[in-house]
Amino acid sequence: MNTSPTPAANVFARACASRGVLQDITGRWGVLVLAALTEKTCRFSELRRHIDGVSERMLSQTLQNLERDGLVNRTVRTTIPPHVEYSLTDLGQRITSPLLTLIDLVEEAVPQIETAQHNYDSNS
Amino acid sequence: MNTSPTPAANVFARACASRGVLQDITGRWGVLVLAALTEKTCRFSELRRHIDGVSERMLSQTLQNLERDGLVNRTVRTTIPPHVEYSLTDLGQRITSPLLTLIDLVEEAVPQIETAQHNYDSNS
Repeated sequence: MNTSPTPAANVFARACASRGVLQDITGRWGVLVLAALTEKTCRFSELRRHIDGVSERMLSQTLQNLERDGLVNRTVRTTIPPHVEYSLTDLGQRITSPLLTLIDLVEEAVPQIETAQHNYDSNS
Repeated sequence: MNTSPTPAANVFARACASRGVLQDITGRWGVLVLAALTEKTCRFSELRRHIDGVSERMLSQTLQNLERDGLVNRTVRTTIPPHVEYSLTDLGQRITSPLLTLIDLVEEAVPQIETAQHNYDSNS
Protein backbone atom coordinates (compact mmCIF):
# COMPACT_ATOMS: atom_id res chain seq x y z
CA MET A 1 0.00 0.00 0.00
CA ASN A 2 1.33 3.37 -0.92
CA THR A 3 0.95 5.60 2.11
CA SER A 4 3.26 8.40 1.02
CA PRO A 5 1.37 11.70 1.04
CA THR A 6 0.76 13.32 -2.34
CA PRO A 7 3.17 16.24 -2.60
CA ALA A 8 1.41 19.59 -2.96
CA ALA A 9 1.21 20.83 -6.53
CA ASN A 10 3.46 23.76 -7.36
CA VAL A 11 3.38 25.60 -10.68
CA PHE A 12 6.90 26.90 -10.09
CA ALA A 13 8.31 23.36 -10.35
CA ARG A 14 9.07 22.43 -13.92
CA ALA A 15 7.94 18.80 -13.60
CA CYS A 16 4.69 19.46 -11.71
CA ALA A 17 1.56 18.51 -13.66
CA SER A 18 -0.04 21.80 -12.61
CA ARG A 19 2.38 23.72 -14.80
CA GLY A 20 1.31 21.94 -17.99
CA VAL A 21 -2.35 22.47 -17.13
CA LEU A 22 -1.74 26.14 -16.38
CA GLN A 23 -0.18 26.40 -19.83
CA ASP A 24 -3.17 24.74 -21.51
CA ILE A 25 -5.46 27.22 -19.76
CA THR A 26 -3.42 30.36 -20.20
CA GLY A 27 -1.92 29.53 -23.59
CA ARG A 28 -2.39 31.84 -26.56
CA TRP A 29 -5.87 30.43 -27.36
CA GLY A 30 -6.82 28.56 -24.17
CA VAL A 31 -7.95 31.70 -22.32
CA LEU A 32 -10.09 32.85 -25.22
CA VAL A 33 -11.71 29.44 -25.78
CA LEU A 34 -12.60 29.11 -22.09
CA ALA A 35 -13.95 32.67 -21.96
CA ALA A 36 -16.03 32.14 -25.11
CA LEU A 37 -17.52 28.94 -23.69
CA THR A 38 -18.67 30.71 -20.50
CA GLU A 39 -21.12 32.62 -22.60
CA LYS A 40 -22.68 29.52 -24.12
CA THR A 41 -22.23 26.04 -25.55
CA CYS A 42 -20.67 26.49 -28.99
CA ARG A 43 -20.06 24.55 -32.14
CA PHE A 44 -16.54 24.52 -33.57
CA SER A 45 -17.46 26.98 -36.33
CA GLU A 46 -19.03 29.42 -33.84
CA LEU A 47 -15.90 29.38 -31.72
CA ARG A 48 -13.77 29.91 -34.77
CA ARG A 49 -15.80 32.97 -35.82
CA HIS A 50 -15.89 34.41 -32.29
CA ILE A 51 -12.15 34.07 -31.64
CA ASP A 52 -10.84 36.34 -34.35
CA GLY A 53 -7.57 35.05 -35.84
CA VAL A 54 -7.48 31.47 -34.54
CA SER A 55 -6.67 28.84 -37.17
CA GLU A 56 -8.66 25.63 -37.52
CA ARG A 57 -5.63 23.61 -36.45
CA MET A 58 -4.89 25.70 -33.36
CA LEU A 59 -8.52 25.76 -32.25
CA SER A 60 -8.79 22.02 -32.63
CA GLN A 61 -5.54 21.42 -30.71
CA THR A 62 -6.60 23.81 -27.93
CA LEU A 63 -10.02 22.16 -27.55
CA GLN A 64 -8.38 18.75 -27.44
CA ASN A 65 -5.99 19.79 -24.64
CA LEU A 66 -8.80 21.36 -22.61
CA GLU A 67 -11.00 18.30 -23.09
CA ARG A 68 -8.14 16.04 -21.98
CA ASP A 69 -7.68 18.18 -18.83
CA GLY A 70 -11.39 17.72 -18.02
CA LEU A 71 -12.24 21.41 -18.51
CA VAL A 72 -14.28 21.14 -21.71
CA ASN A 73 -17.01 18.68 -22.72
CA ARG A 74 -17.23 17.55 -26.32
CA THR A 75 -20.72 16.31 -27.21
CA VAL A 76 -21.66 14.74 -30.53
CA ARG A 77 -25.29 15.50 -31.41
CA THR A 78 -26.82 12.83 -33.59
CA THR A 79 -28.74 15.27 -35.71
CA ILE A 80 -28.71 15.01 -39.51
CA PRO A 81 -26.03 16.00 -40.28
CA PRO A 82 -24.46 15.25 -36.88
CA HIS A 83 -22.69 18.10 -35.16
CA VAL A 84 -20.30 18.56 -32.28
CA GLU A 85 -20.80 20.97 -29.41
CA TYR A 86 -18.34 22.21 -26.81
CA SER A 87 -19.18 23.38 -23.30
CA LEU A 88 -17.41 23.91 -19.98
CA THR A 89 -17.38 21.16 -17.35
CA ASP A 90 -17.98 22.15 -13.71
CA LEU A 91 -14.24 22.30 -13.15
CA GLY A 92 -13.86 24.31 -16.35
CA GLN A 93 -16.40 26.84 -15.06
CA ARG A 94 -14.64 27.14 -11.73
CA ILE A 95 -11.28 27.67 -13.37
CA THR A 96 -12.60 30.12 -15.96
CA SER A 97 -14.13 32.41 -13.37
CA PRO A 98 -10.84 34.17 -12.37
CA LEU A 99 -9.92 34.35 -16.07
CA LEU A 100 -13.03 36.44 -16.74
CA THR A 101 -12.02 38.79 -13.93
CA LEU A 102 -8.56 39.02 -15.49
CA ILE A 103 -9.97 39.79 -18.95
CA ASP A 104 -12.24 42.53 -17.54
CA LEU A 105 -9.30 44.12 -15.71
CA VAL A 106 -7.09 44.00 -18.80
CA GLU A 107 -9.79 45.45 -21.06
CA GLU A 108 -10.47 48.27 -18.60
CA ALA A 109 -6.74 49.00 -18.23
CA VAL A 110 -6.04 49.34 -21.96
CA PRO A 111 -5.73 53.17 -21.93
CA GLN A 112 -3.40 53.05 -18.93
CA ILE A 113 -1.34 50.26 -20.51
CA GLU A 114 -1.09 52.10 -23.82
CA THR A 115 0.25 55.18 -22.00
CA ALA A 116 2.85 52.98 -20.26
CA GLN A 117 3.87 51.44 -23.59
CA HIS A 118 4.17 54.85 -25.19
CA ASN A 119 6.38 56.13 -22.36
CA TYR A 120 8.54 53.01 -22.46
CA ASP A 121 9.01 53.30 -26.21
CA SER A 122 9.95 56.97 -26.09
CA ASN A 123 12.58 56.32 -23.41
CA SER A 124 14.27 53.43 -25.14
CA MET B 1 -10.64 68.07 -30.93
CA ASN B 2 -11.21 64.37 -31.16
CA THR B 3 -14.63 63.71 -29.67
CA SER B 4 -15.11 60.19 -30.98
CA PRO B 5 -15.63 57.80 -28.07
CA THR B 6 -12.87 55.25 -27.46
CA PRO B 7 -14.22 51.89 -28.57
CA ALA B 8 -14.45 49.37 -25.75
CA ALA B 9 -11.51 46.96 -25.61
CA ASN B 10 -12.28 43.40 -26.64
CA VAL B 11 -9.81 40.53 -26.32
CA PHE B 12 -11.72 38.54 -28.94
CA ALA B 13 -10.76 41.07 -31.63
CA ARG B 14 -7.42 40.26 -33.19
CA ALA B 15 -6.30 43.87 -33.52
CA CYS B 16 -7.33 45.05 -30.04
CA ALA B 17 -4.39 46.09 -27.84
CA SER B 18 -5.95 44.13 -24.96
CA ARG B 19 -5.21 40.86 -26.72
CA GLY B 20 -1.46 41.51 -26.89
CA VAL B 21 -1.41 42.51 -23.23
CA LEU B 22 -3.40 39.42 -22.25
CA GLN B 23 -0.76 37.38 -24.04
CA ASP B 24 2.10 39.09 -22.21
CA ILE B 25 0.35 38.32 -18.92
CA THR B 26 -0.79 34.79 -19.62
CA GLY B 27 2.16 33.74 -21.78
CA ARG B 28 4.28 30.72 -20.85
CA TRP B 29 6.39 32.72 -18.36
CA GLY B 30 4.32 35.87 -17.76
CA VAL B 31 1.97 34.23 -15.26
CA LEU B 32 4.84 32.77 -13.25
CA VAL B 33 6.86 36.01 -13.20
CA LEU B 34 3.84 38.00 -12.00
CA ALA B 35 2.97 35.39 -9.37
CA ALA B 36 6.58 35.28 -8.12
CA LEU B 37 6.69 39.07 -7.82
CA THR B 38 3.53 39.13 -5.64
CA GLU B 39 5.53 37.43 -2.94
CA LYS B 40 8.31 40.02 -2.94
CA THR B 41 10.57 42.33 -4.92
CA CYS B 42 13.14 40.12 -6.65
CA ARG B 43 16.47 40.37 -8.41
CA PHE B 44 16.80 38.74 -11.81
CA SER B 45 18.82 35.84 -10.40
CA GLU B 46 16.22 35.18 -7.67
CA LEU B 47 13.44 35.05 -10.25
CA ARG B 48 15.47 32.75 -12.40
CA ARG B 49 16.02 30.32 -9.51
CA HIS B 50 12.38 30.48 -8.37
CA ILE B 51 10.89 29.86 -11.80
CA ASP B 52 12.29 26.43 -12.49
CA GLY B 53 13.15 25.95 -16.18
CA VAL B 54 13.06 29.53 -17.49
CA SER B 55 16.04 30.53 -19.62
CA GLU B 56 17.90 33.80 -19.12
CA ARG B 57 16.70 35.03 -22.51
CA MET B 58 13.04 34.19 -21.93
CA LEU B 59 13.01 35.71 -18.45
CA SER B 60 14.60 38.87 -19.72
CA GLN B 61 12.13 39.14 -22.64
CA THR B 62 9.16 38.46 -20.34
CA LEU B 63 10.26 41.11 -17.83
CA GLN B 64 10.78 43.60 -20.63
CA ASN B 65 7.25 43.05 -22.01
CA LEU B 66 5.69 43.34 -18.55
CA GLU B 67 7.68 46.48 -17.82
CA ARG B 68 6.58 48.00 -21.14
CA ASP B 69 2.93 47.24 -20.28
CA GLY B 70 3.34 49.09 -16.98
CA LEU B 71 2.88 45.97 -14.85
CA VAL B 72 6.43 45.60 -13.54
CA ASN B 73 8.86 48.20 -12.16
CA ARG B 74 12.55 47.84 -12.88
CA THR B 75 14.70 49.66 -10.32
CA VAL B 76 18.46 50.03 -10.53
CA ARG B 77 20.01 50.14 -7.04
CA THR B 78 23.25 52.10 -6.99
CA THR B 79 24.96 49.74 -4.60
CA ILE B 80 28.49 48.46 -5.27
CA PRO B 81 28.16 46.48 -7.41
CA PRO B 82 24.86 47.98 -8.65
CA HIS B 83 21.93 45.62 -8.92
CA VAL B 84 18.51 45.60 -10.54
CA GLU B 85 15.27 44.79 -8.74
CA TYR B 86 11.86 43.95 -10.13
CA SER B 87 8.52 44.57 -8.41
CA LEU B 88 4.85 44.83 -9.35
CA THR B 89 3.30 48.23 -10.10
CA ASP B 90 -0.16 48.98 -8.64
CA LEU B 91 -1.74 47.91 -11.92
CA GLY B 92 0.44 44.80 -11.93
CA GLN B 93 -0.81 43.90 -8.46
CA ARG B 94 -4.43 44.40 -9.46
CA ILE B 95 -4.02 42.25 -12.55
CA THR B 96 -2.06 39.52 -10.75
CA SER B 97 -4.72 39.02 -8.10
CA PRO B 98 -7.07 36.85 -10.26
CA LEU B 99 -4.01 34.97 -11.55
CA LEU B 100 -3.20 33.87 -8.01
CA THR B 101 -6.77 32.61 -7.61
CA LEU B 102 -6.35 30.73 -10.88
CA ILE B 103 -3.06 29.15 -9.79
CA ASP B 104 -4.59 28.02 -6.47
CA LEU B 105 -7.55 26.46 -8.27
CA VAL B 106 -5.30 24.66 -10.75
CA GLU B 107 -2.94 23.37 -8.05
CA GLU B 108 -5.89 22.09 -6.00
CA ALA B 109 -7.46 20.44 -9.05
CA VAL B 110 -4.36 18.47 -10.09
CA PRO B 111 -5.64 15.07 -8.86
CA GLN B 112 -9.00 15.62 -10.62
CA ILE B 113 -7.25 16.78 -13.80
CA GLU B 114 -4.86 13.82 -13.78
CA THR B 115 -7.84 11.45 -13.54
CA ALA B 116 -9.46 13.23 -16.52
CA GLN B 117 -6.21 12.95 -18.51
CA HIS B 118 -5.90 9.28 -17.69
CA ASN B 119 -9.49 8.58 -18.80
CA TYR B 120 -9.02 10.57 -21.99
CA ASP B 121 -5.82 8.72 -22.84
CA SER B 122 -7.32 5.27 -22.22
CA ASN B 123 -10.27 6.07 -24.51
CA SER B 124 -8.24 7.34 -27.42
